Amino acid sequence: MPKKVIRTHPKKIGASPGTLIHVGDRKVDTAQISLIEYTAEKFLEKSVATIDAGVASEDSPAIRWLNIDGIHQVDLLERCGVCFDLHSLVLEDVLNTGHRPKFEEHDDYLFLVLKMLFLPQGETDIRTEQISLILKDKLVISFQEQAGDVFDSVRERIRNNRGRIRKRGADYLAYALLDSIIDNYFVILEKIGEEIELLEDELLADPAPATLHKIHNLKREMILLRKSVWPLREVISSLQRSESELIDEGTGIFFKDIYDHTIQVIDTVETFRDILAGMLDLYLSSISNRMNEVMKTLTIMATIFIPLTFLAGIYGMNFDVLPELHWRWGYAAFWMVCLLVSGSMVLFFKRKQWL
Amino acid sequence: MPKKVIRTHPKKIGASPGTLIHVGDRKVDTAQISLIEYTAEKFLEKSVATIDAGVASEDSPAIRWLNIDGIHQVDLLERCGVCFDLHSLVLEDVLNTGHRPKFEEHDDYLFLVLKMLFLPQGETDIRTEQISLILKDKLVISFQEQAGDVFDSVRERIRNNRGRIRKRGADYLAYALLDSIIDNYFVILEKIGEEIELLEDELLADPAPATLHKIHNLKREMILLRKSVWPLREVISSLQRSESELIDEGTGIFFKDIYDHTIQVIDTVETFRDILAGMLDLYLSSISNRMNEVMKTLTIMATIFIPLTFLAGIYGMNFDVLPELHWRWGYAAFWMVCLLVSGSMVLFFKRKQWL
Amino acid sequence: MPKKVIRTHPKKIGASPGTLIHVGDRKVDTAQISLIEYTAEKFLEKSVATIDAGVASEDSPAIRWLNIDGIHQVDLLERCGVCFDLHSLVLEDVLNTGHRPKFEEHDDYLFLVLKMLFLPQGETDIRTEQISLILKDKLVISFQEQAGDVFDSVRERIRNNRGRIRKRGADYLAYALLDSIIDNYFVILEKIGEEIELLEDELLADPAPATLHKIHNLKREMILLRKSVWPLREVISSLQRSESELIDEGTGIFFKDIYDHTIQVIDTVETFRDILAGMLDLYLSSISNRMNEVMKTLTIMATIFIPLTFLAGIYGMNFDVLPELHWRWGYAAFWMVCLLVSGSMVLFFKRKQWL
Amino acid sequence: MPKKVIRTHPKKIGASPGTLIHVGDRKVDTAQISLIEYTAEKFLEKSVATIDAGVASEDSPAIRWLNIDGIHQVDLLERCGVCFDLHSLVLEDVLNTGHRPKFEEHDDYLFLVLKMLFLPQGETDIRTEQISLILKDKLVISFQEQAGDVFDSVRERIRNNRGRIRKRGADYLAYALLDSIIDNYFVILEKIGEEIELLEDELLADPAPATLHKIHNLKREMILLRKSVWPLREVISSLQRSESELIDEGTGIFFKDIYDHTIQVIDTVETFRDILAGMLDLYLSSISNRMNEVMKTLTIMATIFIPLTFLAGIYGMNFDVLPELHWRWGYAAFWMVCLLVSGSMVLFFKRKQWL
Amino acid sequence: MPKKVIRTHPKKIGASPGTLIHVGDRKVDTAQISLIEYTAEKFLEKSVATIDAGVASEDSPAIRWLNIDGIHQVDLLERCGVCFDLHSLVLEDVLNTGHRPKFEEHDDYLFLVLKMLFLPQGETDIRTEQISLILKDKLVISFQEQAGDVFDSVRERIRNNRGRIRKRGADYLAYALLDSIIDNYFVILEKIGEEIELLEDELLADPAPATLHKIHNLKREMILLRKSVWPLREVISSLQRSESELIDEGTGIFFKDIYDHTIQVIDTVETFRDILAGMLDLYLSSISNRMNEVMKTLTIMATIFIPLTFLAGIYGMNFDVLPELHWRWGYAAFWMVCLLVSGSMVLFFKRKQWL
Repeated sequence: MPKKVIRTHPKKIGASPGTLIHVGDRKVDTAQISLIEYTAEKFLEKSVATIDAGVASEDSPAIRWLNIDGIHQVDLLERCGVCFDLHSLVLEDVLNTGHRPKFEEHDDYLFLVLKMLFLPQGETDIRTEQISLILKDKLVISFQEQAGDVFDSVRERIRNNRGRIRKRGADYLAYALLDSIIDNYFVILEKIGEEIELLEDELLADPAPATLHKIHNLKREMILLRKSVWPLREVISSLQRSESELIDEGTGIFFKDIYDHTIQVIDTVETFRDILAGMLDLYLSSISNRMNEVMKTLTIMATIFIPLTFLAGIYGMNFDVLPELHWRWGYAAFWMVCLLVSGSMVLFFKRKQWL
Repeated sequence: MPKKVIRTHPKKIGASPGTLIHVGDRKVDTAQISLIEYTAEKFLEKSVATIDAGVASEDSPAIRWLNIDGIHQVDLLERCGVCFDLHSLVLEDVLNTGHRPKFEEHDDYLFLVLKMLFLPQGETDIRTEQISLILKDKLVISFQEQAGDVFDSVRERIRNNRGRIRKRGADYLAYALLDSIIDNYFVILEKIGEEIELLEDELLADPAPATLHKIHNLKREMILLRKSVWPLREVISSLQRSESELIDEGTGIFFKDIYDHTIQVIDTVETFRDILAGMLDLYLSSISNRMNEVMKTLTIMATIFIPLTFLAGIYGMNFDVLPELHWRWGYAAFWMVCLLVSGSMVLFFKRKQWL
Repeated sequence: MPKKVIRTHPKKIGASPGTLIHVGDRKVDTAQISLIEYTAEKFLEKSVATIDAGVASEDSPAIRWLNIDGIHQVDLLERCGVCFDLHSLVLEDVLNTGHRPKFEEHDDYLFLVLKMLFLPQGETDIRTEQISLILKDKLVISFQEQAGDVFDSVRERIRNNRGRIRKRGADYLAYALLDSIIDNYFVILEKIGEEIELLEDELLADPAPATLHKIHNLKREMILLRKSVWPLREVISSLQRSESELIDEGTGIFFKDIYDHTIQVIDTVETFRDILAGMLDLYLSSISNRMNEVMKTLTIMATIFIPLTFLAGIYGMNFDVLPELHWRWGYAAFWMVCLLVSGSMVLFFKRKQWL
Repeated sequence: MPKKVIRTHPKKIGASPGTLIHVGDRKVDTAQISLIEYTAEKFLEKSVATIDAGVASEDSPAIRWLNIDGIHQVDLLERCGVCFDLHSLVLEDVLNTGHRPKFEEHDDYLFLVLKMLFLPQGETDIRTEQISLILKDKLVISFQEQAGDVFDSVRERIRNNRGRIRKRGADYLAYALLDSIIDNYFVILEKIGEEIELLEDELLADPAPATLHKIHNLKREMILLRKSVWPLREVISSLQRSESELIDEGTGIFFKDIYDHTIQVIDTVETFRDILAGMLDLYLSSISNRMNEVMKTLTIMATIFIPLTFLAGIYGMNFDVLPELHWRWGYAAFWMVCLLVSGSMVLFFKRKQWL
Repeated sequence: MPKKVIRTHPKKIGASPGTLIHVGDRKVDTAQISLIEYTAEKFLEKSVATIDAGVASEDSPAIRWLNIDGIHQVDLLERCGVCFDLHSLVLEDVLNTGHRPKFEEHDDYLFLVLKMLFLPQGETDIRTEQISLILKDKLVISFQEQAGDVFDSVRERIRNNRGRIRKRGADYLAYALLDSIIDNYFVILEKIGEEIELLEDELLADPAPATLHKIHNLKREMILLRKSVWPLREVISSLQRSESELIDEGTGIFFKDIYDHTIQVIDTVETFRDILAGMLDLYLSSISNRMNEVMKTLTIMATIFIPLTFLAGIYGMNFDVLPELHWRWGYAAFWMVCLLVSGSMVLFFKRKQWL
């Protein structure tokens, strides 16, 4: 989760709409462009230096996937706009890494913005990255903020011609990418689910202020996660209902499938929120219970000894006339009274179920 | 209820969609396949070794119910797909035991995923199991995670030709199975309802930290139950509104009936949630009330005896000149003052209604 | 309100759907069947022994109202089904006294299930009873769990030919019955409203743990009441929008009227819930305020006397060298110091507004 | 705001629907009927004795406004029904002063029920009164519970022929009346807004139990206000969308305007609710903060002096062998120890930021 | 944020609708009217003295933007109405600075009311100002409460012919103004986001009552912000869906873009609300935790020393017969007992994890 509460600035304030200005923190030094081109029979994977290399001859039957890591290079984006005829507002959305997930249907391409959540190998912190997808005829363009993504399995399947992917069109490739992204939400949720369970055990065993802060942090993560997940639902739903010619009818069932997964992600996020709310209640009640116990201890001790101390005080007085002091069994009687008083106190507390 | 907060992984991450990989904990050693075949006149029940045995000749008028216990045998599922012409995504959903309840209408079959909740005879823990139903022409296929289910009464009715079941088609059989599943939700809810009532009595009589943990556990169960019940509503509603030819018009009223029951289940779950929330409030208030009582006891004791102890302390002082010590009625006067002070304190507390 | 949290079992689990099994607690020994038959001119009221007596010749112009008290006699229900051609699922719903309010439009009759809430004369506990209504051509059948209902005013109006009732059809009779039922919701709500006001006065005057339990009980009653009232809205709304030929166009405005009343009932229930939630907050705050006062009393007493007691303790010490003890005005000086210390404490508390 | 929580009884229970029975508290001795009749040129205002006086000849071009103060005179209402051909259920709704705001479109008239909130000149308590409006061709009838209303400005404008009112039809008159009513909601809200601000200052300066009760009262007022405001939205919205011929097309924009105002009223009520909820939280936190301060004071005093008192107690003991008593600098050493102990305590508290 | 909770008065109560009366606090001495007129080639900017100067000849191809700072001059508004043929209710809405954001489609113009939030250069307090926009054929009129706005960048772009603005119509100009306004919401939100983060750090480090007040103030700001943001959504959505001929088809995508930004503003406001609610919970828990710590300290001190003080009291008694006093090792034994008692107390507290 990002340290910053929320990135709110969608673009440089006051700039002309459609002006390409990169908004965001992380940058790679130089953008990396890679191109994968395949048919059922052939497969080609290469790093390319310029966007222009991604433009194929009109009549090639091959499906192309152009992946751009590092969107801060504004000239590259502009070239993209020219080569593939993209609207300047689309390019602005690609650059603006604080954007809300969205889906737009343009005349001859579809445009998607999503958040990619993933745990890079060997790291423990969740990484959030904005990913934009453009689906054109026989072409998918993916824009990422930096290198490293969740698409390795897709690449593997294309390379090795596993599953349907090489036999189907660009729409299926787009689906496969979306599917990878949403699959990784489950990995993240599973991780959070485990943290919640550990926290719950901690809560039952020994609730400390640190537990409270952990609950608070998870609640906050859920608030932010929810913010990227809820719009996803609309996005996938619009995509699924889209009647664009770019999406083959047979691919519809696959989009339905990721829609189901998105709903499941939302369900899980909401369930986690409910569980965390319950845990907070439990924490507060535990604190109250503890306070009660502390106060009971104090009250019992004080209530038993305060009258006795008073009694001892009396017989420490120096009155000339204080007959009990001179009784033979005075001291013994004093102890009897002490035992009697404290005994009856203990009985009183027992009856009140404080002991 | 499952120990695990929530199973979130819908499939092996990165696998090609439609790849059949079993996801889930419980397994039986070998899958059991049983076949029930019936017309109004004839009845046949047998264990079969292969799925192929369930494929009947096209022109047989009999209704077949193929039940598969143990879905972990991937080859068996694949055979199913071939024999009955099922989409690979459907089979993936059958295998993925953490799926959300869903309903899908395919060209020549309907597909349902549900959660079966039941209390096996003689056990006290609720068992949750995913059940998938396929309704084809004159055929129902049910996939269960393991042996043991809530369908015995349906089998009994088929065997003994009780009620309408033998006279109607496969859609009625599917209805009867759904009806059994949802009936068992009521058994579970009744059990939880009883627990809530016991807990409420405990709460009024003697609220202890254990009571709090029980309330918390029930709330958590409700969160998870709700997660399987809410989607059920959509599922049954879509099923009811479906215009598939597989569902006879006369069966519609029965699906309406289980829809009503589903709504009633949801109502009850929501009511339980409200009641549990109220109980938590009551618990917290009881704790506060108790704390108040503890503090009052301490305050009364301390307030009465602290001034008296001070008084006793005074006459224990060793000043050369301390005239009261030498009064004749000094000691008696001391007691008078003590009684006066404590008496007025008691009056003060009585007026404050603390006693 | 019923003692039981909630009756969840809709029918005997595992029974064939449409099997008539009575579900519920209260029974009368024998079911009572009464028949009222009227036209604008004629009026006939009698107890009948069998359902068959309620079946009139086809061409009679009279409106008949068949009321059955005690639905536990399954044979009677079955006879009803035969005589009036009712679906077995309808009869099952009549028998199942834990049903949710519902409305069903069948080919030649309308079917309604409702909860009747009423305060029998001279009793103080609210009675909840399920009532099922069947509206056929020139016939209304009402099924009640036991004798005693809210329909006396309707009977009176029929007997004495007051208002429109004798001049209109069976649909108006059904309306009149619904109207009586919903009118009685207002009686119940008025009673609860009065309890809430009493409770609020109690809360402001002297909040005790008993007050909390009363608030909790009312909240719980509201949760259950809400459960029977919300579905009522849909029921009456569907009824109002129904295009059945059984409902005369001129009766529509009357159904609109009870729809308005239903909304008002719901509004009131929700308002009561809000008010009760506010009262709980107020209770908790009062408890906190009291605790504060208790703690302040203790703190003031302790803070004033603890230093004084220490002082007295010092001059009770037996050091050989303790010069103050031998001063002439030692004892007087001691008292001066005591007054000074306690006086400045009092000033300190006054400035803190604790006194 | 009325003292009574809520008036729930819509009519005398058991009465035949449409029976005219007055339900409500306040009555004036005799109903006052006033008639205003105007065209763009002429103007006539008079008190009339009977309803019949309000019936004009068919072909008069004048707009008539019949205002009836005091609806308890049932015979008057009945006469109204006859003269203007109103449905008996409409008259019942007029009489039932606990009705929910509603809008009904009848064949040749429109019927509106609203709550009028106003602060009579020189009074401080808000008065709630039900007002019913009937809009017929060239006629508006308004029914009020008692004399005194918010329509003086409308009357003034008619009398002095200010604005458009004399130039337009009865629909504009109805609009002007509604506009006055809703304008007065803003007066009430402004008053409540000021109370909230005062309360907020009080809360920050010195929160007392009285503050809590004031917050509670305002919350309660908001609950009741909301109950009359929310249905208003539907009422005005239906009115605005109504295609009745009684409403001139040109008046539509005015109804849109009061719709906007109604939404603004609702917005404000909801905002007030949110602010009051926040104030309650703030109050509770202040109480906790204070308790903390009280407890800290006690703890600091007790923690410092309890060990010292023990020390003094030791050297007050009468053991034969107690060497310290006979040391030369014993007493001085005792004081040193006391200063040391209390000094380190103070340091400890300073480090904990309790001092 | 304005000091006043909420301005509720929409117009002078009782005034004839459409009467132009200024409602609001801030005024400038004289209204400033500025006119910008441009085509792709030409550009003209001037201050004008009267509204009439803004009326261009019918056949001029130039786009005009008339900006009026200071709406309190009613005569100016009236002149506007005459010159540009605006409805009197529109002018009333312009004058009423407490209006809810709204969008109205009139025959030959569109009317928008919005709240402009901005941080003037070098100031720290957010300024809220109502801004009304009229979009006519080739004309945009903007009404502001006072000088100073967020439109400088738009002016700059027009002056320098940057971006598309000079090449497009009045609809694009209106879009550019809206875009500037909504962009500034993000500036405000960013500022609030930073305050929230600072507050969160403060909360974790050292929660003080001042922290609570800051949270409360931010929550309150969010309530008010929400009130201006939510209606914005509808406004922009209606605008976007509007089929007015005044909006060019090609401008549609730009309105879609600001709709997306509006949703993002709402999302952020809701997220902030959730985070602030969580912070309040955290604050309350911290207070409870602290109280617990305070009470524990007291309890430990008191529980250890109260019994010891009692013991010391005993041996300070003056009984004639008190054998322990005369034991040789009496005093040493006393210390042993003291160490034993306090040691076991410490052990007890350690086991309870209070130490």
